[in-house]
Amino acid sequence: MPVQHPAFPVEPWVVRETHLDLDRLAQTESVFALANGHIGLRGNLDEGEPFGLPGTYLNGFYEVRPLPYAEAAYGDPESSQTVVNVTNGKIMRLLVEDEPFDVRYGELRQHERVLDLRGGLLSRTADWASPAGRLVRVTSTRLVSFAQRAVVAISFEVEPLDGEADVVVQSELVANESLPGGGGDPRVSAMLSAPLQSRLFGAVEQRAFLVHTTKASELTMAAVMDHVVESQDGVEVSIEAFEDIARFTVATTVRKGQPLRIVKFVTYGWSQVRSVEAVRDQVAAAIGGAKRRGWDGLVADQKEYLDDYWQRADIEIDGDPELQQAVRFAMFHTLQAGARGERRAIPAKGLTGSGYDGHTFWDTEAFVLGVLTYMAPRAAADALRWRHETLDLARKRAEALGLRGAAFPWRTINGEECSGYWPAGTAAFHINADIAAAVMRYQLATNDQDFDRDIGVELLVETARLWRSLGHHDASGAFRIDGVTGPDEYSAIADNNVYTNLLAQQNLRAAADAAERQGHRAAELGVDAEEMASWRDAAERMLIPFDDALGVHPQAEGFTEHQRWDFAATKPDQYPLLLHFPYFDLYRKQVVKQADLVFAMFARGDAFTDEQKHRNFDYYEQLTVRDSSLSASVQAILAAEVGHMDLAYDYFAEAALIDLEDLEHNTRDGLHIASLAGAAGAAIAGFGGARDHWGNYSFRPRLPGALSRIAFKLLFRGRQLGVEVKHESAKYSLLSGDPLTIRHYDHDVKVEAGKSVERPIPRLTEHEAPTQPPGRAPVHRRPPR
Amino acid sequence: MPVQHPAFPVEPWVVRETHLDLDRLAQTESVFALANGHIGLRGNLDEGEPFGLPGTYLNGFYEVRPLPYAEAAYGDPESSQTVVNVTNGKIMRLLVEDEPFDVRYGELRQHERVLDLRGGLLSRTADWASPAGRLVRVTSTRLVSFAQRAVVAISFEVEPLDGEADVVVQSELVANESLPGGGGDPRVSAMLSAPLQSRLFGAVEQRAFLVHTTKASELTMAAVMDHVVESQDGVEVSIEAFEDIARFTVATTVRKGQPLRIVKFVTYGWSQVRSVEAVRDQVAAAIGGAKRRGWDGLVADQKEYLDDYWQRADIEIDGDPELQQAVRFAMFHTLQAGARGERRAIPAKGLTGSGYDGHTFWDTEAFVLGVLTYMAPRAAADALRWRHETLDLARKRAEALGLRGAAFPWRTINGEECSGYWPAGTAAFHINADIAAAVMRYQLATNDQDFDRDIGVELLVETARLWRSLGHHDASGAFRIDGVTGPDEYSAIADNNVYTNLLAQQNLRAAADAAERQGHRAAELGVDAEEMASWRDAAERMLIPFDDALGVHPQAEGFTEHQRWDFAATKPDQYPLLLHFPYFDLYRKQVVKQADLVFAMFARGDAFTDEQKHRNFDYYEQLTVRDSSLSASVQAILAAEVGHMDLAYDYFAEAALIDLEDLEHNTRDGLHIASLAGAAGAAIAGFGGARDHWGNYSFRPRLPGALSRIAFKLLFRGRQLGVEVKHESAKYSLLSGDPLTIRHYDHDVKVEAGKSVERPIPRLTEHEAPTQPPGRAPVHRRPPR
Repeated sequence: MPVQHPAFPVEPWVVRETHLDLDRLAQTESVFALANGHIGLRGNLDEGEPFGLPGTYLNGFYEVRPLPYAEAAYGDPESSQTVVNVTNGKIMRLLVEDEPFDVRYGELRQHERVLDLRGGLLSRTADWASPAGRLVRVTSTRLVSFAQRAVVAISFEVEPLDGEADVVVQSELVANESLPGGGGDPRVSAMLSAPLQSRLFGAVEQRAFLVHTTKASELTMAAVMDHVVESQDGVEVSIEAFEDIARFTVATTVRKGQPLRIVKFVTYGWSQVRSVEAVRDQVAAAIGGAKRRGWDGLVADQKEYLDDYWQRADIEIDGDPELQQAVRFAMFHTLQAGARGERRAIPAKGLTGSGYDGHTFWDTEAFVLGVLTYMAPRAAADALRWRHETLDLARKRAEALGLRGAAFPWRTINGEECSGYWPAGTAAFHINADIAAAVMRYQLATNDQDFDRDIGVELLVETARLWRSLGHHDASGAFRIDGVTGPDEYSAIADNNVYTNLLAQQNLRAAADAAERQGHRAAELGVDAEEMASWRDAAERMLIPFDDALGVHPQAEGFTEHQRWDFAATKPDQYPLLLHFPYFDLYRKQVVKQADLVFAMFARGDAFTDEQKHRNFDYYEQLTVRDSSLSASVQAILAAEVGHMDLAYDYFAEAALIDLEDLEHNTRDGLHIASLAGAAGAAIAGFGGARDHWGNYSFRPRLPGALSRIAFKLLFRGRQLGVEVKHESAKYSLLSGDPLTIRHYDHDVKVEAGKSVERPIPRLTEHEAPTQPPGRAPVHRRPPR
Repeated sequence: MPVQHPAFPVEPWVVRETHLDLDRLAQTESVFALANGHIGLRGNLDEGEPFGLPGTYLNGFYEVRPLPYAEAAYGDPESSQTVVNVTNGKIMRLLVEDEPFDVRYGELRQHERVLDLRGGLLSRTADWASPAGRLVRVTSTRLVSFAQRAVVAISFEVEPLDGEADVVVQSELVANESLPGGGGDPRVSAMLSAPLQSRLFGAVEQRAFLVHTTKASELTMAAVMDHVVESQDGVEVSIEAFEDIARFTVATTVRKGQPLRIVKFVTYGWSQVRSVEAVRDQVAAAIGGAKRRGWDGLVADQKEYLDDYWQRADIEIDGDPELQQAVRFAMFHTLQAGARGERRAIPAKGLTGSGYDGHTFWDTEAFVLGVLTYMAPRAAADALRWRHETLDLARKRAEALGLRGAAFPWRTINGEECSGYWPAGTAAFHINADIAAAVMRYQLATNDQDFDRDIGVELLVETARLWRSLGHHDASGAFRIDGVTGPDEYSAIADNNVYTNLLAQQNLRAAADAAERQGHRAAELGVDAEEMASWRDAAERMLIPFDDALGVHPQAEGFTEHQRWDFAATKPDQYPLLLHFPYFDLYRKQVVKQADLVFAMFARGDAFTDEQKHRNFDYYEQLTVRDSSLSASVQAILAAEVGHMDLAYDYFAEAALIDLEDLEHNTRDGLHIASLAGAAGAAIAGFGGARDHWGNYSFRPRLPGALSRIAFKLLFRGRQLGVEVKHESAKYSLLSGDPLTIRHYDHDVKVEAGKSVERPIPRLTEHEAPTQPPGRAPVHRRPPR
């Protein structure tokens, strides 16, 4: 996947598209998606067509579909949830002298779209000559409000560039849009046709609404639109609504220099329990608030929200402007995925596409929250509160599986397991430890007592109970966890996966600590001293296999004795392997889809010696093909830790550019939020060398040759710490809060407000760089000029 | 599953039902099924209704159906084959004074069905009082000819017992019968509605035919019926045919003592390639042959065929008449499943029901051929010739899986993989070694040179190639076979399953031996000395794991370290476990569905010491729940070998009575042919102690206390050996052929024609009997009075 030149011009704070490429439309719809964690709009063109994939999503709003099995078995989920493309409120159709504005006809003389990462706006200008030769400029700006989470606003302008023209603008709400069919790739979302059933609709003045309920899941959603028309006199407007469409029509004559401008406000709401009337009235109320604030007010609020965010979340990267842009793009979409979810999940694609059916996986806790915890802790807490609200479902699932505690779903929207292939779904129990790790991380970073008592301890206790019942002591007294699947999806159903066992060990200890800390709450949960002791004992005796002959950790027991994948015989077009080889073949051989043991060395770096990290990293680099977007960022972090800085830089670039460069050829289905968040994490934990094991904050910063400086900030325990890394030294500044002691390499560093502390970076002991499977090395990134 | 009293009266050579129990109709339809390996007729009532499951089957005739997946993956079969209920030629409807003969109405004063195991006939008599009070006797006899494989014949008589009556008999061919719907149990056949499309039909005189083609698989079948009516004068007959029905109607007045008798001949044929006209003419020709031979001729031929069979295949059991009957029933159905298959598969249910979709599994080679080889070697050879004819499909499957040689399907009708759950399908590669073992067994038993050259060597070579590419040498030089599934379906995807590795070892050696023996043919197959050496090397270095601490073989690597299933907490109604627990839970724990390591000790008894056999048997008895019908017979054999004679007897009874007593509650779907053949095998290999490792025929006979004598005969290398076992001694007699040396216990015994040799049976060293999981011990069989 060589990157020849940037797909978008390199600019620090915007992503700009200077030419509309219809072949890349689906990709750019994902790149230009706007969301606030509650509402998501793909970057579809205002006029609705052409499109790659129309997409308007409400977090948590889904339809159910049956899951078929060739040979059904006990415990297989009978149905899945799938994200619904809800009523499209983005549409602004335009007729110029009776000809529809459609970029496929006439001549598009100029077209630009700009995603403003500081403003939170998507802008577009198009100069279009109609087939009859009339030239118009269409300008639109769109926002999904961070401040008012139910609100979308669009400013739409049309102006003739060649005199006077009759124009008609149709502002619409469209339900049950036709969607393109899915292919044979199981990763592509199962699309549902016409999932929405009309319940209510209406129109009055410049306002119209549609209310629908899904057929099977019986969720009700409402969308309402209202308008402000700014123009000269002589404007005729009309409004109408039907079951699946509402239309506000503006007809007028416009002149050069005097554009017609329409501001459209759209609000969305949905509910599982409230009546259709209640949901209708809720969105009507929201639109009142939006209109009152007005376009300029919403734009100002958006800026204010983002200024605050960037003050906490910006990562500065000097020496590689393209990656500077990419990391800001990554942090912007990470925010968009989680900002205002408010006790809803953060899906793998955020709200940017229907890939993976809109499901949430371990990506949230293992990748996204690792960043949000230190930059937007409220969003992190909300995502964990969502998990907490699904605890009853997870307890039921554990019971169905014959286990204690809670078994969270591998993939879900509403908290129920949606995985139709258990070896790579239900068996991936590590998700429970990933959730526990995120709880622990949040708790240690924020010292949020309410969260600890109300949310954290119960999540830790119920996941610890799961591990205690899932594992057992063997005759030698070792605690084994057999027959589970670790992060690497090219292995499955193995015994004593190191990642799983180390994370479970941490989970068990954290639960015992939490129960001790929150004795009263723990007692309510039925935890007693015996149970706590049994967790600590299981953690203490956790089996961590090690291959003495090779001096490396096997990913799971027996792994290093398996046959190595025949990489030499594997052709470049046979990647990703899962589309060209059966799981049977993949599972039984040494081939790694994504960081697993390497991830363990990041997540539980405290459990490995430096020597083991070096040897393990070298060993697994030779086996890892990165057929998953969840790998490069973690490999970047470990590569940096063991001193392969150029390799770390290459992996970092791959993680950061995954969607801007469409490296996996599926950005069309939505962005890879975990890879984007992971890229930010790779800057901080890789080049910044930041670690947070057990609440001990330490840094082993080091830059790759191509970069001259990185700088980032982290929140913890009421403090904000600034970190600036150059080649020779690192500078730590306490930007707010009480003094703090951190570790720089193996030394304590005390930081106090107003005094920066600079520390030298030790010289790197060079090691030979490891090799990757043929053709699977990351693109070697040349230092940019 | 306590057996209180026999379901059928105990008689040595018949299975008699003295009372029609409609609740057990589906079971008795299976028990009373007639087949010749080509045509199978369930024991449906002549009048068609009521029924449990209507069933008329042609071996190899199937429809295809798509296999759905919740998450499809590379290599998953896209479609499955399913046996088709073809045109029903059994139907003889009867009207008595305008009232249809239907046992659900009026009064059934007497009803008897008799399966004659020596005559190969199913007879029925019914004395029925119609709702209007007329009393008639209906007598029918049915056969599926062993001599003429396309032929079914029915003798049908009706006689009033109370004077004179007007009767109408409708003899029919019915296509696309309605079938009862399937349940949620994945083991129940997927039923297809109306799979047959009419192509031709016609009727003339007393003959009519229907020709149909399946919609998707495009197989063409034809059925023709012809009749001989024996009666007084005054008989009116008519014939008619439509797309899905042909009807021959006989109307007359019958008097007591002067029954109306109709002999119906039906012939069947099918083809994948021949034209509809050709298939039609083929069955017309066959019916000419049948009519010419006539009813009495067909009955006589049937008797002659079976006399010959029983001379070879009868197993005499003294001391338990019920088991004597059961074993003869078993040997009769084993013959029916395979007799005239002639290069078609032997399905798991024979041709007695649509269970498992009519698929063939490893049951054939591992159970059925183990008996047929020594009693009906031609049938055994034909079954293996069928495998040989599917070699191209198996080579393609191997290639799709990235392997060399041939990968035979886990379940199939036409040779293509139909398994929709790969961990318990494709991954069960042992089927290839099972086929090779059957080839080797047949070859060593018959010394059939043509078979060896034309069939055997290629099957052995291609399966050996599979193993060589499936396994690999580890760093220590051991040859490992990782990530496969052994016979036990409560484990999957494990490394170095002992059964698999030992059978693969034998396969590799047998292939090298065969290639050496058939050098010319081997060279044609591209085998050279290097390849043969690589097979022998892999066999030599085959890894056979052993748990030194426990002194037992783990079923697969790591097995003995897994948690033991919590049998104490498992309720009786939670068996079979697969319907109440997820595979996830079963796979990761020590719980065994069916003999696996114990089967290895039978199939490769030469690879274990006596001490290992004792310890292993004890160990696995505690873990084995027998949720499969493929277990009891093997456990019987090993129990006998290690001296637990009462336990062996109990297991033997369970295997033999599985269908007569409906022990698994699913005999309705068809008989458990492998369990029946296995019961016969348990008599021979268990109480007879017969083994055939590498062509060395040895006996370690011993009777359980309840039996006073068993006797059986075996064919090998042109000889027939008679074996008679009593408590104190065993007698060997050469019934035909050249002198032969066998082993009795550890001594050579030379047997010559006309001279019986009697040898004492050593005293048994008593060991404490092992225990089974609570509630899973076989029913303790009390010695019958």
